[in-house]
Amino acid sequence: MRKKELVIGIDIGGTNTKVGIVDRNAKIYLHFDFPTRSEKPAEDLFKRIFDKIEQEKSELPENGVLMGVGVGAPNGNYFSGKIENPPNLKWTSVDVVGLIQKYFDLPGVLTNDANAAALGEMQFGAAQGMKNFIEITLGTGLGSGIVVNGQLVYGHDGFAGEMGHVIVIKGGRLCGCGRRGCLETYASASGLRRTVFEILAEENQPSSLREIPYEDLTSKMVYDAAVQGDAVALEAFDFTGRVLGEALADAVAYFSPEAIILFGGLAAAGDFIFVPTKNYMEKNLLPIFRNKVKILSSGLPESDAAILGSAALIWNELDQGKV
Amino acid sequence: MRKKELVIGIDIGGTNTKVGIVDRNAKIYLHFDFPTRSEKPAEDLFKRIFDKIEQEKSELPENGVLMGVGVGAPNGNYFSGKIENPPNLKWTSVDVVGLIQKYFDLPGVLTNDANAAALGEMQFGAAQGMKNFIEITLGTGLGSGIVVNGQLVYGHDGFAGEMGHVIVIKGGRLCGCGRRGCLETYASASGLRRTVFEILAEENQPSSLREIPYEDLTSKMVYDAAVQGDAVALEAFDFTGRVLGEALADAVAYFSPEAIILFGGLAAAGDFIFVPTKNYMEKNLLPIFRNKVKILSSGLPESDAAILGSAALIWNELDQGKV
Repeated sequence: MRKKELVIGIDIGGTNTKVGIVDRNAKIYLHFDFPTRSEKPAEDLFKRIFDKIEQEKSELPENGVLMGVGVGAPNGNYFSGKIENPPNLKWTSVDVVGLIQKYFDLPGVLTNDANAAALGEMQFGAAQGMKNFIEITLGTGLGSGIVVNGQLVYGHDGFAGEMGHVIVIKGGRLCGCGRRGCLETYASASGLRRTVFEILAEENQPSSLREIPYEDLTSKMVYDAAVQGDAVALEAFDFTGRVLGEALADAVAYFSPEAIILFGGLAAAGDFIFVPTKNYMEKNLLPIFRNKVKILSSGLPESDAAILGSAALIWNELDQGKV
Repeated sequence: MRKKELVIGIDIGGTNTKVGIVDRNAKIYLHFDFPTRSEKPAEDLFKRIFDKIEQEKSELPENGVLMGVGVGAPNGNYFSGKIENPPNLKWTSVDVVGLIQKYFDLPGVLTNDANAAALGEMQFGAAQGMKNFIEITLGTGLGSGIVVNGQLVYGHDGFAGEMGHVIVIKGGRLCGCGRRGCLETYASASGLRRTVFEILAEENQPSSLREIPYEDLTSKMVYDAAVQGDAVALEAFDFTGRVLGEALADAVAYFSPEAIILFGGLAAAGDFIFVPTKNYMEKNLLPIFRNKVKILSSGLPESDAAILGSAALIWNELDQGKV
């Protein structure tokens, strides 16, 4: 019987860690969720994942062969194979590739979650066949994975692609990184919330959003208000799209991508975010780039995207003979 | 006798076109300058270059073999092999690779002048051995050539690397591209002149620069004034370095380069431009990038850099078997 090549895709998040066993066609055979529990050593998490896979192995195709493990994690560094000082996790430094070797005895590779999403998009989603594109994850923050000549941009030290920390408004909003005016303080779920509160403070329109405390306001609520025609919600989406569109115009000057792909919670707002983003980008583009760059929604199912991205990461390495 | 491989490097400028015959070690065997004369068809220029090389061929090493032709030109497109609507040239569209084949019967390759400079730097200059760096040409405008994973970033259509047209001050100075606030309206020889005039208008310090009409003011004059301690000249360099340094901090977030290399007329101002640029960049960097990214002067001799860049372009293609 011809062997069936499979990989393990792991996405480590602040609260939950998702694990899947995936083939080359994005078919997920096994799918587990674990609480990350970063108050314990990372070794505990890897041991739980390993034990669970061992236990469920009989569910895999009979001819299945595990080829490698791909991991996406906040601050995951491709070159060192380590997670260093991750935001939202209590670990300081985790040798992920070392732990993969110890527990699975398989080739392992690590990158950050946004880069993994870009590789997933290229292998299984909206960027299939593209050599130059930018994947933007609009979650609590803004992550980006940038592909040039068919390869991820890791830069000299593995930390490239930090588009969320490009400064778009000098002296603007305070960012988690300690600086002011970073793109992610505007174009993200938390940025949208800040924008709503700014508009509520500056303008006088009645709005259902005036009833909701800051800590409770989600981008879904802003979306629901926009659907009802709430003026504050609509203005907040327009402003978010403007800041993002202007930043994308600059990104196009650097990369001249075929497409920019928006992914994550805020992208689910559909036209409310895509239309102003596209319009303000076009308005600000250097003439030679106008009407050339597509803005697309992700072709990955949101629930499995992180696992598929991590799986794409290891497939990519295996195919290039790098691991 | 073992053959000696040589290439022709051509740099087409608004006024003059430089041509050199170059070996793999940056040795230039023949060196010519031609008036570009873009009021005539581009074919006229290529015919003059071809005739001159034919005429002087006996000066080349006896075992010399011409392998190809590399051309750097404003708006030169790597993918199409054409110059399209170049600034400062009267041509609308020139099929450069076609003209090379017609006159020289050799493989030809074209890119813009800033990209050629980056390749020259990688092959012969300060970026030898680097895989990730940004070359910035501070001339009348600001050109950039960006190298990622050892390859030039051309993007989807060959027009990537337009860092001069990243918008750094919204609603700022009018740019030749028709938009406002582009980096090159601040960080370039002409940007420095505009800055001097802005400071002369806003401040009251005595300055030798108050004697000079706008059209006559060169960056060399601003440099000479700075050497004499002229307060306006010093402030103008500091402001230029601030705008450039802030833009570089954003570029580092995208690319995480090993080094940023400054080249061209304004870079000749040495510490007056390098010191503020470095300081403002460091001050604005995301913490993970601090004290990691070198800012270097070009390792290419200014007079031959354009020819060496064009030569590197064709060596690069020949070595990769692309032509």
